[in-house]
Amino acid sequence: MKFIKPVPASWINEKIEGEIIGLQNAEATGINEIHKVENGDITFVDHPKYYDKVLNSEASFIIINKSVEAPEGKTLFFVENPFEAYCKIVEHFRPFVVQTEMISSDLKKGNNTFIYPNVFIGKNVSIGDNCIIYPNVSIMDHTIIGNNVIIHPGVVIGSNSFYYNTKKDREVWYKKMPDCGRVIIEDNVEIGANCTIDRGVSAETVIGKGTKMDNLIHVGHDTVIGKNCLFAAQTGIAGVVNIGDGVTVWGQCGISKTLSIGNNATLLAMTGVNSDLQGGKIYWGVPAEEASNKKRELVWIKRIPQLWEKIMNK
Amino acid sequence: MKFIKPVPASWINEKIEGEIIGLQNAEATGINEIHKVENGDITFVDHPKYYDKVLNSEASFIIINKSVEAPEGKTLFFVENPFEAYCKIVEHFRPFVVQTEMISSDLKKGNNTFIYPNVFIGKNVSIGDNCIIYPNVSIMDHTIIGNNVIIHPGVVIGSNSFYYNTKKDREVWYKKMPDCGRVIIEDNVEIGANCTIDRGVSAETVIGKGTKMDNLIHVGHDTVIGKNCLFAAQTGIAGVVNIGDGVTVWGQCGISKTLSIGNNATLLAMTGVNSDLQGGKIYWGVPAEEASNKKRELVWIKRIPQLWEKIMNK
Amino acid sequence: MKFIKPVPASWINEKIEGEIIGLQNAEATGINEIHKVENGDITFVDHPKYYDKVLNSEASFIIINKSVEAPEGKTLFFVENPFEAYCKIVEHFRPFVVQTEMISSDLKKGNNTFIYPNVFIGKNVSIGDNCIIYPNVSIMDHTIIGNNVIIHPGVVIGSNSFYYNTKKDREVWYKKMPDCGRVIIEDNVEIGANCTIDRGVSAETVIGKGTKMDNLIHVGHDTVIGKNCLFAAQTGIAGVVNIGDGVTVWGQCGISKTLSIGNNATLLAMTGVNSDLQGGKIYWGVPAEEASNKKRELVWIKRIPQLWEKIMNK
Repeated sequence: MKFIKPVPASWINEKIEGEIIGLQNAEATGINEIHKVENGDITFVDHPKYYDKVLNSEASFIIINKSVEAPEGKTLFFVENPFEAYCKIVEHFRPFVVQTEMISSDLKKGNNTFIYPNVFIGKNVSIGDNCIIYPNVSIMDHTIIGNNVIIHPGVVIGSNSFYYNTKKDREVWYKKMPDCGRVIIEDNVEIGANCTIDRGVSAETVIGKGTKMDNLIHVGHDTVIGKNCLFAAQTGIAGVVNIGDGVTVWGQCGISKTLSIGNNATLLAMTGVNSDLQGGKIYWGVPAEEASNKKRELVWIKRIPQLWEKIMNK
Repeated sequence: MKFIKPVPASWINEKIEGEIIGLQNAEATGINEIHKVENGDITFVDHPKYYDKVLNSEASFIIINKSVEAPEGKTLFFVENPFEAYCKIVEHFRPFVVQTEMISSDLKKGNNTFIYPNVFIGKNVSIGDNCIIYPNVSIMDHTIIGNNVIIHPGVVIGSNSFYYNTKKDREVWYKKMPDCGRVIIEDNVEIGANCTIDRGVSAETVIGKGTKMDNLIHVGHDTVIGKNCLFAAQTGIAGVVNIGDGVTVWGQCGISKTLSIGNNATLLAMTGVNSDLQGGKIYWGVPAEEASNKKRELVWIKRIPQLWEKIMNK
Repeated sequence: MKFIKPVPASWINEKIEGEIIGLQNAEATGINEIHKVENGDITFVDHPKYYDKVLNSEASFIIINKSVEAPEGKTLFFVENPFEAYCKIVEHFRPFVVQTEMISSDLKKGNNTFIYPNVFIGKNVSIGDNCIIYPNVSIMDHTIIGNNVIIHPGVVIGSNSFYYNTKKDREVWYKKMPDCGRVIIEDNVEIGANCTIDRGVSAETVIGKGTKMDNLIHVGHDTVIGKNCLFAAQTGIAGVVNIGDGVTVWGQCGISKTLSIGNNATLLAMTGVNSDLQGGKIYWGVPAEEASNKKRELVWIKRIPQLWEKIMNK
């Protein structure tokens, strides 16, 4: 999330009752969790395992629970509980506000766009021209929808990320990360019935221009999908994934978090992706391999009895 | 889709601004895409790869972008863009009409059928006797529901097919095929929460009498499912599939498009079907094989280290 | 289901028009199907295959279609159709009652709990303090929700179990088991968009304190999930499963019915569980094995061509 206007370090520090180390007078331009952090952003770290990663990240402002020297050009905020301090800032800019209207009165709606009965639309939503939003759809706060977009019944856009601060020595192991990100649905996209698309935890979940999704697909927070992709039913894409343009994903595939898939890759049905994949190739299997290799492998497996016969019975 | 009354070739030709080749005075009785085309139907072909298939199909009227001789008894319409011509006819008979009522006033509803609050029902829908339609269900246009049917919360019936005209040399690769088909849910069917059942792109998606579906199941366009079948949760069935009677499909199976599965077949959980399956057998695995073979294969895989030991270390 | 006050055997027998064998004057304290039956409960058996199991179960009252001697301390009701007799009792205590209100007037709602527009809430529901119920959620009859619970859009809680009385020599093979169970969602639970959680067929479906679920997850009837568990998107859990505390289940896993998974087990993505799993270990694959074994197995499979080369070409 970028702030509407820059926020002084002193204001942040007062808010979270910390101690400033390093640059005193800088101004933050946004806030992001570590996967999406950019120059000018505030972020946080609360586990020694990640200190180095975060101190060396693009973040300009780091909320931390160890009093270390600030890297050059950065501002640290030393606090006891960095996660709670981060939440305090997010909740300041994105407070939970009750909505009793079915469609928020601040909706920006283009021409020739039709919204069926029984659709819920949250705050800070815009929908372009020539769109159809079918019944029983839920479009939550901070969603941007382009032109010529079709959203089928039962779709949920902008639900919370599945992202928790985990400490197994607390009674409550998983504490919810408050979201300050958005969903962006570009022009000519179609989203099938009962799909769920989570909003960015701190950045943006994007469905690229001309991409088409079948039913019951899940897209995690901060995932960015390119243009002219095709996703068949029941595929699931975890958070912070990058998918290129022209990618085809057949039914019931799964893609793990933070991975990248290159342009024009194809995943055959039921493929499980647990590493980055190059573009222009066809993949299959769990874990995903080039489909031709995987198919050969099935042939090899069928030959084991022959080997056994030859070796064990001679 | 069958027309209410036959449509003369001359009317069609005027509508799509083409050139008639072959039979001039025939009358079309319906329109269908190639997978479901029948005698008397109009269909289209726009790629040389499929000319032969379509010219030799049951179609009586073919919209085509090549000036070829008409096969005996057929009428061709020669146009520059057959896909757009096909769409023009479909949209004439099935125009998109805005609906602002929660339940269409033309609903035909039987006796002792109860519809919970918050259900959307489109145009041209009929629901038989003794049915329960639970809350937050969306029943879209052109759906026929029999007697004693239970539709659980969040179900979507009659959403659009996932079917596109694809040309990768256009800016928009995937152009939407307009639907003119229906969904038919026969007597005694039960559909679990948040299932999605797409309407036929040009024919009918059918759930046969007495078939029961668990939650979060996807059924693609023009798929026909027989009687007394059982589908456990999260199974996905692509478009134009034929499933016989008495078929049992356990959880999270996937069935690829245009396949057939015989009567009384059983698919164990997480099976992926990529070829036709005979009835009366038990299948498992990805791709599906007879379960007994597949289970033996797992035993063979466990024996590879023994083979290795014997061969490599001798 | 436990009765509010005990029910005499004579009342039951009159209701189902049977013949009492064994204890005549006992009083039943509840009713349950065989998987969940407890001392004091009524249950039924209609197939010779299960007579012994049910006669030796904890059930105190057994509806049966064979005139056998009653085990000590038990009451039998001899009837022609035990399934229909069981249904008659369930339907007496849990009749289907039409609800036309969007939110039942008997809802017990705690402080600081916000319910978005377009939520359906059935009868006999209670929701604790500090909860958020997002739009287009369906909470069906007999659901208990604790404090600090978040239910995302499109979720269905308390839909019917997928549980049928099966006889393949009838025209209707599958007859619906009427539900008399509940759903209990404990404190600090979060349920992701479009999840479905079925109510107990006769006991309780439970989501334990602090457990978090991502989107599009299915939980079957009478399944009991422990505290501080994490379930990633699109996982499916069948009925009557027991999952311990601190269990982590990654995306698109499937867990078959009536199984148990021990505390602090981890299932990697796309794992299929078909047997009980011990706690404290990491599992992967279909069927689930310890992940380290399964990963080694993949390495072994890659070595088959080497074996072949060595054996067949020598």
